[in-house]
Amino acid sequence: MTPKEFRTYGHQLIDWIADYRVSVADRPVMARTEPGDIKAQLPKQPPIRPEPFADVLADLDSIVLPGLSHWQHPRFFGYFPSNGLLASVLGDYASTGLGVLGLSWQSSPALTEIEEVVTDWMRQMMGLSDAWSGVIQDTASTSTLVALLSARERTTNYSLSRGGLQGEARPLVIYATAHAHSSVDKAALLAGFGRENIHVIPHDESYTMRPGALRARITEDVAAGFAPCAIVCTTGTTTSTAYDPLEQVAPVARDFGLWLHVDAAMAGSAMILPEMRHMWAGIESADSIVINPHKWLGAAFDASLYYVRDPQHLIRVMSTNPSYLRSSVDEKVKNLRDWGLPLGRRFRALKLWFLIREQGVEGLQARLRRDLENAQWLAGQIRATPGWKVLAPVGLQTLCVRHEPGGLTGEALDAYTQGWADRLNRSGAAYLTPAILDGRWMVRISIGAAPTEREHVAALWEAMQNEALPPQEASH
Amino acid sequence: MTPKEFRTYGHQLIDWIADYRVSVADRPVMARTEPGDIKAQLPKQPPIRPEPFADVLADLDSIVLPGLSHWQHPRFFGYFPSNGLLASVLGDYASTGLGVLGLSWQSSPALTEIEEVVTDWMRQMMGLSDAWSGVIQDTASTSTLVALLSARERTTNYSLSRGGLQGEARPLVIYATAHAHSSVDKAALLAGFGRENIHVIPHDESYTMRPGALRARITEDVAAGFAPCAIVCTTGTTTSTAYDPLEQVAPVARDFGLWLHVDAAMAGSAMILPEMRHMWAGIESADSIVINPHKWLGAAFDASLYYVRDPQHLIRVMSTNPSYLRSSVDEKVKNLRDWGLPLGRRFRALKLWFLIREQGVEGLQARLRRDLENAQWLAGQIRATPGWKVLAPVGLQTLCVRHEPGGLTGEALDAYTQGWADRLNRSGAAYLTPAILDGRWMVRISIGAAPTEREHVAALWEAMQNEALPPQEASH
Repeated sequence: MTPKEFRTYGHQLIDWIADYRVSVADRPVMARTEPGDIKAQLPKQPPIRPEPFADVLADLDSIVLPGLSHWQHPRFFGYFPSNGLLASVLGDYASTGLGVLGLSWQSSPALTEIEEVVTDWMRQMMGLSDAWSGVIQDTASTSTLVALLSARERTTNYSLSRGGLQGEARPLVIYATAHAHSSVDKAALLAGFGRENIHVIPHDESYTMRPGALRARITEDVAAGFAPCAIVCTTGTTTSTAYDPLEQVAPVARDFGLWLHVDAAMAGSAMILPEMRHMWAGIESADSIVINPHKWLGAAFDASLYYVRDPQHLIRVMSTNPSYLRSSVDEKVKNLRDWGLPLGRRFRALKLWFLIREQGVEGLQARLRRDLENAQWLAGQIRATPGWKVLAPVGLQTLCVRHEPGGLTGEALDAYTQGWADRLNRSGAAYLTPAILDGRWMVRISIGAAPTEREHVAALWEAMQNEALPPQEASH
Repeated sequence: MTPKEFRTYGHQLIDWIADYRVSVADRPVMARTEPGDIKAQLPKQPPIRPEPFADVLADLDSIVLPGLSHWQHPRFFGYFPSNGLLASVLGDYASTGLGVLGLSWQSSPALTEIEEVVTDWMRQMMGLSDAWSGVIQDTASTSTLVALLSARERTTNYSLSRGGLQGEARPLVIYATAHAHSSVDKAALLAGFGRENIHVIPHDESYTMRPGALRARITEDVAAGFAPCAIVCTTGTTTSTAYDPLEQVAPVARDFGLWLHVDAAMAGSAMILPEMRHMWAGIESADSIVINPHKWLGAAFDASLYYVRDPQHLIRVMSTNPSYLRSSVDEKVKNLRDWGLPLGRRFRALKLWFLIREQGVEGLQARLRRDLENAQWLAGQIRATPGWKVLAPVGLQTLCVRHEPGGLTGEALDAYTQGWADRLNRSGAAYLTPAILDGRWMVRISIGAAPTEREHVAALWEAMQNEALPPQEASH
């Protein structure tokens, strides 16, 4: 494809995306497709000869669109939002079109320096002190893996330079509650700690870590010959957006010399609102934080921010220095390859730079406040309606909800809950994801897709009431 | 930004990228910027109010462009190429604009199924049997980390479900040559093996692994109480594109039950040429392979293909299954979150799908053959010129070159080599990256940027001869 053809097809694609963002509201939110439907429409072998590009673009309509669940839909309430605001999309387009890589500062200086600036802007926006240094990773899964690897190496005084984790006498232990995200377990397992050495700390009725239980468990572990290594706290858990009490956990971490990692993947975006910063009071005592602007804030996926207080430690854990990557300015610059797992890096800073400048901090704040108000409004509606329950505190923008028609309990209630959620998703009216809370299925409603206004939340509530008919009525 | 504004600014950006791809040839290849130059042009604080988007776009010209080293430049010969062909760029644009995520099949079925199809197309294009299953990761660093984690868990019979690597009695060992990429060391260290347990196997004069030495070392290690775990072979090393002898290594891996991982990040693209497949003869005996279509092949960064023979093992190592990610079709589909490190995934398959269809297999093959011929042509020119040496076999598209004016040896030769490479880079005429081979600095010339024609290689050769004046002449 020549630049001239790119101009033609590029304009078509821009228009197609613009149309998509407008018309997506008219589509069913969840894909109505069966496993194998999409594959069956594609040739089993690659094309030997070039295909007309118009045919390729046409398949976006005929094959791709019907096979999508639409995350940019105003009635998307599943998982957590993943907003790609259009200014951020254009920032990503600039990155892909330029096609430069940040292996080292020298391999594209602007890539590194604009990343330094925008991660520092974000730091200020969230009210963090200037003791923090940031870098953009792909996802929170990666950021948390980097955090636990860093913790492992601090506790073992850089075992990687010797016999690795397998050379250690005492088993290293990680602490978190059962409400930590699955990526915390995954990171601990991949980092080699082993499942037996992930010690689950009890939580209270608000699903937040009990600091007294944490201290007791660590004390016990030390006596038993373990080497406590890291505590992972969550600001905004996935199930209910609960937040662990950092101010009470931090002294425990300090007293025992443990790494404190804070997973604020979701709620971190809300920290641009001063009135929400109580959620992570005590954050300055942490060693590392992950925040995903590709969730609620609006940066096109993927953009996960990872902040550390001791970048030299991070670099020592992550660095490699082969001759083919060295340059004459290495002593004077940040080489971001030493700040995470991958060597190659996209120019991810552009999508954050474009987003923050086009919205302004105030624009971002206003949208998040709208969503917080919508969540409270919906919680009020649900609490006021007989048979319906809001099961967890609504501290952010996610609700845990259940309809409990008289007489239904236990597994029958589970089946009923999953049934109406499934009917609602299949109806196309909205998309929400059920999950287990206190051993029973309930329905999560995560508000915060960028186009979601009050009217869409009201439509959701109406659809929920329509689908959640008690079993005796549903059978008619 | 409204969809309407997106249309306006999107068209402008498309035109800007089209212009960039044409005019890049007139720019100096390497950024002429000093550390801190870019940062100094940006506000230290984020904007509180929205900025006019025209100002944001204007900064691409005034701030970003002068701070880039241009990877899509016809005279880019550094590192390895990272081609973002324009059809692939548009595939990535579709992905970012749609803004859907592949947490699970259900979260966007087309994302998963098109990835299944294009990874299978690529498998066929490279002549691999249908025993392989593929997935798209971000980079080879990640793919190799996944491979070594998989090896670790196979050798320990899933230690992650028990005490982790720290519960193992015998130290696990990784084998590779000194010419393996730095990401292999990094992956082994991060996976917890420890530097002492990376056993470096001698290479021959072509920089390829000596299978006899490998067998001897493993035998010795077994006797000494180690647990040999994995061998990493390279098809196309970074320094000289050497290729380890898989056919001789595979029996060693089999005899001792070791995992065999093949890093074909660079040369994997060349396997779409049947005449080049001798480079990885024996590949069917491997357990895992990484190939980066975002290098030479032309897929916009990032797109690293990871193939395994036993996907069930990969899933067992990588899977998590929290309630909030489950769906009713999980038994019938691939959930790609269990095929790598991150939970969230972009719709990366689109950029490969667009690329392969727009180019056709023949189109991709023709360009790679052009580059192979250019490399042989340049090697011929250099070999025929007194004082110049080609230092390693030119098996692919990268040359290791040195100008050795009479009398210069040792550190004086190193300083001279780095000097002329640096002058050449600063001249703007070309970009190439020096590296160390056999303990001495030399200059790598990596041919294969998509716009690089014979004329650009000839211009490089002329510039090299202009800059590489012997010291006595250079001082005049």
